Amino acid sequence: MLKETLERGQTQTDAALERLIPPATQHPTSIHRAMRHSVFAGGKRIRPILCIEAGRMVAGSVPSGIEELGAALEMLHTYSLIHDDLPALDNDDLRRGRPTCHKVFGEAIAILAGDALQTQAYKVLSQLQCSTNARVRIIEEIAHGTGTVDGMIGGQVVDLEAEGTNPNVETLEYIHRAKTAALITASIVSGGIYAGATDADVTSLKAFGQSIGLAFQIVDDVLDVTQSSEQLGKTAGKDTAAEKATYPALFGIEESIKKADGLVESGFASLENFGKRAETLKDLARFLVERKK
Amino acid sequence: MLKETLERGQTQTDAALERLIPPATQHPTSIHRAMRHSVFAGGKRIRPILCIEAGRMVAGSVPSGIEELGAALEMLHTYSLIHDDLPALDNDDLRRGRPTCHKVFGEAIAILAGDALQTQAYKVLSQLQCSTNARVRIIEEIAHGTGTVDGMIGGQVVDLEAEGTNPNVETLEYIHRAKTAALITASIVSGGIYAGATDADVTSLKAFGQSIGLAFQIVDDVLDVTQSSEQLGKTAGKDTAAEKATYPALFGIEESIKKADGLVESGFASLENFGKRAETLKDLARFLVERKK
Repeated sequence: MLKETLERGQTQTDAALERLIPPATQHPTSIHRAMRHSVFAGGKRIRPILCIEAGRMVAGSVPSGIEELGAALEMLHTYSLIHDDLPALDNDDLRRGRPTCHKVFGEAIAILAGDALQTQAYKVLSQLQCSTNARVRIIEEIAHGTGTVDGMIGGQVVDLEAEGTNPNVETLEYIHRAKTAALITASIVSGGIYAGATDADVTSLKAFGQSIGLAFQIVDDVLDVTQSSEQLGKTAGKDTAAEKATYPALFGIEESIKKADGLVESGFASLENFGKRAETLKDLARFLVERKK
Repeated sequence: MLKETLERGQTQTDAALERLIPPATQHPTSIHRAMRHSVFAGGKRIRPILCIEAGRMVAGSVPSGIEELGAALEMLHTYSLIHDDLPALDNDDLRRGRPTCHKVFGEAIAILAGDALQTQAYKVLSQLQCSTNARVRIIEEIAHGTGTVDGMIGGQVVDLEAEGTNPNVETLEYIHRAKTAALITASIVSGGIYAGATDADVTSLKAFGQSIGLAFQIVDDVLDVTQSSEQLGKTAGKDTAAEKATYPALFGIEESIKKADGLVESGFASLENFGKRAETLKDLARFLVERKK
């Protein structure tokens, strides 16, 4: 059941990305090849799948065209990875088991490919097959979740500046909530809005997203310590090497896993009103904290 | 009259930017200081002013709140300048007479500040004080004008790749249309849409924007050759030094100026239907090709 959800979500998202990113043969080709190199590098499509399943939970069935929203979320996630991997930031050569964008296309094209994926994401969002009212609300949520105040870029900034400073728990939690949980939350909330969520639904989805988004990042930190580069498809042990703020560094591995489990449980409580319809999203959340890569 | 239009447009735009970009004291402060460093560096606010005046022409008076659209356009323009100035791209130390963003804040923060200005622009666009229908159309136009296919990023890519290759006229025209004219066109068209333009109005505005946008870039090329760094507030002679494709290099200075004048005239013809209401926009276009910096 879960396996089916994941596979169908990945297939739908990949098909939408294929349609919504200009073909590799489109002039100027280098930028489109660079965008596609990073987008089609075997990503797990977690944000799109959470978005689609939140939409299904709210509407009772998968709303038509929601995979385009999922594709836009994946473009935004990929843009952040491309820029994060640049020499001036994390300086990473390997991502999802492949050379990073700037290693293949050079820094200039990688910077512009990240920019272009952000631009294309908003173009796709402006053309979604839901009401114009839902579209502007979705764009607002996503721009907030990827912005500088409690959003993805804010988290990246504090993460960079915290390197080697022995950050405290508050700083670490800000980083994780902003850098990772905010876009995961926006993915879940925007899927709900696409499906016609009420204000009460949005509040529940937001609480759920914040809990499992943070749990997801804690597990990511743990995997960076416990898994090899081969298992992860990206450079392992990077956090420790860069003296990054992580949960295992502050709390140890066992306690970190306990925290992640606790967050998932409190996330489940937020979905109470959806009753049995929440089962697939709960399965997904469990999968995200129990994954091995 | 023109002086008043320019000054009022600059003041309105600056006030909107001040309100719409998080304060320099907002956590994390470095990113907000970096965004503000580049946004408040004495830019001429040409795109916002063209947007506001296109809106005035269509509606008969300046539509309430349109300066927020102007501010979003200026954020997008500034994001492109910050990334263009990076060492991996044009490697420029000076912009508008001040050290570029990465010279003051480092490359990592400069990359993220550019990203954040793009994100914030779309947040502002999603919240504009016009109908949700107009908002999604505006977002679509702007995302197209700044994208990879005939848009700003496409122009930057071809510009980079044409360095030192003696590009032909077709390539040069693609670069200038995509890199500069597309966002100028989107500024004019989106101002019109904000003001309730009909489809016929949009077609006229698009033709006008494409003509004066290209004229504007030709004049920019000419000024790079004829003016000093001090006069321009940015490094002069950069195009020649980098063996960039420019109109003066291909046609000489006099012929380039003639081409720019011809484009302005054909742009005026596109505005015929607006009659006397087009006078301010025409004055602006004349000013843009006769400017000295």
